Amino acid sequence: MNEAIFTVNNLWILVSTILVFIMHLGFATLEAGFVQKKNVVNILFKNTMIVVIGLLTYAIVGFNLMYPGMNAGGFFGFSGFGLSLPGGDPIEYAGGNYTYWTDFIFQGMFAATCATIVSGAVAERIKLVPFLLFSAVFVALCYPITGFWNWGGGWLKAAGFYDFAGSTMVHAAGGFAALAAVLVLGPRRGKYTDHGIKPIPGHSMPLATIGVFLLWFGWYGFNGGSVLSANPMGVSLVFVTTSLAAAAGALVAFIAGYLLFKSYDLSMTLNGILGGLVGITAGADQMSPNEAMLIGAIAGAIIPFSVVFFDRRKVDDPVGATSVHLACGVWGTLAVGIFGAKAGLNQVLVQLMGVAAIGAFSFAAAFAIMYALKQTVGIRVSEEEEMIGLDIGEHEMSAYADSPSEQMAMAVS
Amino acid sequence: MNEAIFTVNNLWILVSTILVFIMHLGFATLEAGFVQKKNVVNILFKNTMIVVIGLLTYAIVGFNLMYPGMNAGGFFGFSGFGLSLPGGDPIEYAGGNYTYWTDFIFQGMFAATCATIVSGAVAERIKLVPFLLFSAVFVALCYPITGFWNWGGGWLKAAGFYDFAGSTMVHAAGGFAALAAVLVLGPRRGKYTDHGIKPIPGHSMPLATIGVFLLWFGWYGFNGGSVLSANPMGVSLVFVTTSLAAAAGALVAFIAGYLLFKSYDLSMTLNGILGGLVGITAGADQMSPNEAMLIGAIAGAIIPFSVVFFDRRKVDDPVGATSVHLACGVWGTLAVGIFGAKAGLNQVLVQLMGVAAIGAFSFAAAFAIMYALKQTVGIRVSEEEEMIGLDIGEHEMSAYADSPSEQMAMAVS
Amino acid sequence: MNEAIFTVNNLWILVSTILVFIMHLGFATLEAGFVQKKNVVNILFKNTMIVVIGLLTYAIVGFNLMYPGMNAGGFFGFSGFGLSLPGGDPIEYAGGNYTYWTDFIFQGMFAATCATIVSGAVAERIKLVPFLLFSAVFVALCYPITGFWNWGGGWLKAAGFYDFAGSTMVHAAGGFAALAAVLVLGPRRGKYTDHGIKPIPGHSMPLATIGVFLLWFGWYGFNGGSVLSANPMGVSLVFVTTSLAAAAGALVAFIAGYLLFKSYDLSMTLNGILGGLVGITAGADQMSPNEAMLIGAIAGAIIPFSVVFFDRRKVDDPVGATSVHLACGVWGTLAVGIFGAKAGLNQVLVQLMGVAAIGAFSFAAAFAIMYALKQTVGIRVSEEEEMIGLDIGEHEMSAYADSPSEQMAMAVS
Repeated sequence: MNEAIFTVNNLWILVSTILVFIMHLGFATLEAGFVQKKNVVNILFKNTMIVVIGLLTYAIVGFNLMYPGMNAGGFFGFSGFGLSLPGGDPIEYAGGNYTYWTDFIFQGMFAATCATIVSGAVAERIKLVPFLLFSAVFVALCYPITGFWNWGGGWLKAAGFYDFAGSTMVHAAGGFAALAAVLVLGPRRGKYTDHGIKPIPGHSMPLATIGVFLLWFGWYGFNGGSVLSANPMGVSLVFVTTSLAAAAGALVAFIAGYLLFKSYDLSMTLNGILGGLVGITAGADQMSPNEAMLIGAIAGAIIPFSVVFFDRRKVDDPVGATSVHLACGVWGTLAVGIFGAKAGLNQVLVQLMGVAAIGAFSFAAAFAIMYALKQTVGIRVSEEEEMIGLDIGEHEMSAYADSPSEQMAMAVS
Repeated sequence: MNEAIFTVNNLWILVSTILVFIMHLGFATLEAGFVQKKNVVNILFKNTMIVVIGLLTYAIVGFNLMYPGMNAGGFFGFSGFGLSLPGGDPIEYAGGNYTYWTDFIFQGMFAATCATIVSGAVAERIKLVPFLLFSAVFVALCYPITGFWNWGGGWLKAAGFYDFAGSTMVHAAGGFAALAAVLVLGPRRGKYTDHGIKPIPGHSMPLATIGVFLLWFGWYGFNGGSVLSANPMGVSLVFVTTSLAAAAGALVAFIAGYLLFKSYDLSMTLNGILGGLVGITAGADQMSPNEAMLIGAIAGAIIPFSVVFFDRRKVDDPVGATSVHLACGVWGTLAVGIFGAKAGLNQVLVQLMGVAAIGAFSFAAAFAIMYALKQTVGIRVSEEEEMIGLDIGEHEMSAYADSPSEQMAMAVS
Repeated sequence: MNEAIFTVNNLWILVSTILVFIMHLGFATLEAGFVQKKNVVNILFKNTMIVVIGLLTYAIVGFNLMYPGMNAGGFFGFSGFGLSLPGGDPIEYAGGNYTYWTDFIFQGMFAATCATIVSGAVAERIKLVPFLLFSAVFVALCYPITGFWNWGGGWLKAAGFYDFAGSTMVHAAGGFAALAAVLVLGPRRGKYTDHGIKPIPGHSMPLATIGVFLLWFGWYGFNGGSVLSANPMGVSLVFVTTSLAAAAGALVAFIAGYLLFKSYDLSMTLNGILGGLVGITAGADQMSPNEAMLIGAIAGAIIPFSVVFFDRRKVDDPVGATSVHLACGVWGTLAVGIFGAKAGLNQVLVQLMGVAAIGAFSFAAAFAIMYALKQTVGIRVSEEEEMIGLDIGEHEMSAYADSPSEQMAMAVS
């Protein structure tokens, strides 16, 4: 390939890597904003460590498990531990669009986002170290295995399943794992009472808003980088569909939220943006702008109903991760069979099969890991710690040192 | 054109699109920082919805209104609803520098920034839905019409008016609209009393500072992307002039603020950065580094005087949007006739004419829309709501759930 | 050179410039988060003005002092005031990878980071204007002189010293200056008492976390841009080593922090990330992924011991700048002689000599400037001002207008 084209293709995947990296700050601030003041240090700690663990485990085992270098279907493959540049001309690597190092670091940033989805759902009551152990196993083994099924050239790819940037591979996989984790862990104390469901408002709407904008910002790398080159038509169409789906998701979630709850609900609108983004992710390169708006709008409409659905079933998810990532991830994956260039009944069925297979595996694996941790080291903080907050309980500090919880910290210590 | 050059040109406009996108988070956090704690959710909601509305209306009508595809002067043109890739080779589109999709999404991000300028000026007393209606009409119709006059190939372009990245087309247009909106709306209660002007300090300087840095960050895409290619000399010169104007604006605003008010005023310094950025925007590709520093320095000096000027006239603008965007936008546009490659008396007169025409149209249109809304649905929250804050009044939540305003929320509900 | 390759190389350095720019917001939010609530406006003001002063002085004198255009060793060179594009084809400039303007603005953003390192260490008790004077002199004269020694083609380069992106040139230089400044200034009142060392917790962990993520984000431009082209193998390897060193630093600092202090310390983990980043910076282009992890891990282990070391010696550094930038900067520079392509005893000795020379110069220069300021205008705020905070004392405002310190402000005024 032309050296200049190779250089610009490679550069775009590296810039996309940076954009996906900053999504981790987006998740950290979004989740920090949506939890109570007494649990902020804990959620920041978890989200910081997830990037760290994600990158290290992906270097050691995940990358070679997800991309073993065979393209002939199958359920499992592994090409050894660690990273090593394959011999020969890097220009030849991966079809000539980027280097081996670029491939690893872009995919490694992706891998860590999957585990991050879980952290919001289990916030405010899970013990730190068991959660980190869960994340390490999930991102080192579970995500790469299902990732191989499609992106690594496994059986789902052979079957015709299509998931451009990961509505299912990343978001629904993380969402199903979050659901499993919440079921093992149980709701926060006092959330579901005999008198109804108690709202527990997040402590900082500015942090939550910063989080959603950073996620949208990073999504241009998440979806745009998934073109796997800087192809002008490819990347620019993905930018348009991603933007319009996010916007439509927000508008519809805002209106639907108003019709349901008679208030202008900022959290709902922010989650509408995320729902639209998750929804378009599977088919961002397949849709026209109008189709993208429609897919985003439907995702936006799903959000409030999904939030109510999970809440009624006592699935306590402080940040709405199951609604955003699971519900809209499934919707986006199916939408590839309904709209765009691949639409058709057969494609819908293949998409359904892919969602079911990856959902089942991710749910079962997450359930098993969490259950094993629960039976051994325990996963839930004590009732007293949940009351005073995990910041004091797990970290002996408070997020805002002048705040009342700081006074509490002093009183305790 | 060479495929590799086309690819890198297109990529830079897309990266610039992302940078302009994050300016919306900059506006959101800047404005949130400069308002009172009780109105934070409201301003975040407005700024989130403006991007959403801006992108959707620009897709449906704005893009085709601003760039109808004729280049022969005139006041108005329209090439139909919606987006559709023109037939033929995308390489041929727009002179061969980027695709149709890239053109739309870059210009769409620009469009939304214009309406955002208004939101800060009318903060803390405007009703949510009328403001969103105003934004939708302004960004769908008014901004594209004046945009066409110059960038779309209309009469101002034919007349020789030059506004590189929008000191007038975006910033003064938004600033004039903000002024009109404030005049229709009136000041916040208690701001101007018989005993003088009451300062109402913003609730979070960290948020405001984050906002200004993000705006500066994004401005590299706003100005740098306006080169409309990745031309090395063009983009790199624009980076230098933009950086130095921002820095000079801050330094002079800091010193002028100290001489006027005898304090080291962070808000003034931050607005000095923004003033320098707005000031250089019209001629960022025309100036030497020294000229850029001078233009930025004068913009920085304008800021404190303009703030005092508007305050004495009871134009209540909580974030200083009129000073930053209107006053410095006008200055920057005139500076194109005073400094740089296009300097000359004739150019000054053409620049003046352009500012006057766009200013008059934007002011009149914004005034008319706001006035119509005032006479029909009403635009101002009740006195009681203004007292308790728009977060509780419009959104039934507070930005910081552990804060005193949350207690108020509980007492109210 | 090929026009397309030149364009993409130039573009990557410009994008890196933006990334280094946002590191200034990272420093601002990190330091703001780690100081007390009463000193937040002051630290934001300082960090804002440092970028401003850094860019302006670098344009006027620094760039021509650091890169006088001779490549023949020596201790000092200067090619005149101001910026002016050298005649001839810009393609020929700097070996054909970027334009003169790109060279200036990328190096200018770097320059300002060096002074920023000092601001955190002297926080909460230094007077504003003397600090700004110190920063102006340091970034205008001291940093460019030592910068010339290596990157500008001076004697250290001739001696074989290697510091890829500035573990010593930027970080240890800033760290040694910070140490000198702290020694002249003295600790915060009440920090070191007869009863031991009093912890003074930072006021906002979300701000500190945002800061570290933004620094990591920007570091991809800091290290990645230091390849000085978009060379695919070069940049992608630097991305991998930078990422893995940061991750390893965090993990080891977390574990070491737990072993030493028996708590899951967020500050320690965040500083572990920064330590890993500083550590890999000198050899980011020389290391394999495994070597990068090892260098980062050792840097992470250094952090808690260094924090304790400096604290026992009553070097009061509110943000840990000496541990992160000085200690890990020295480590990273030596690591170039221990690991990677340049490993060897001779290289270790050359690296030691470089660290010693630059450290001695930076320390002595910073000490002399601070001492001169102390003896003339004074550098330390009054005891009363330190008590009520620098926000009220120097700026007559508080960072959070609804907060208790605002009440104090009202009571005072």
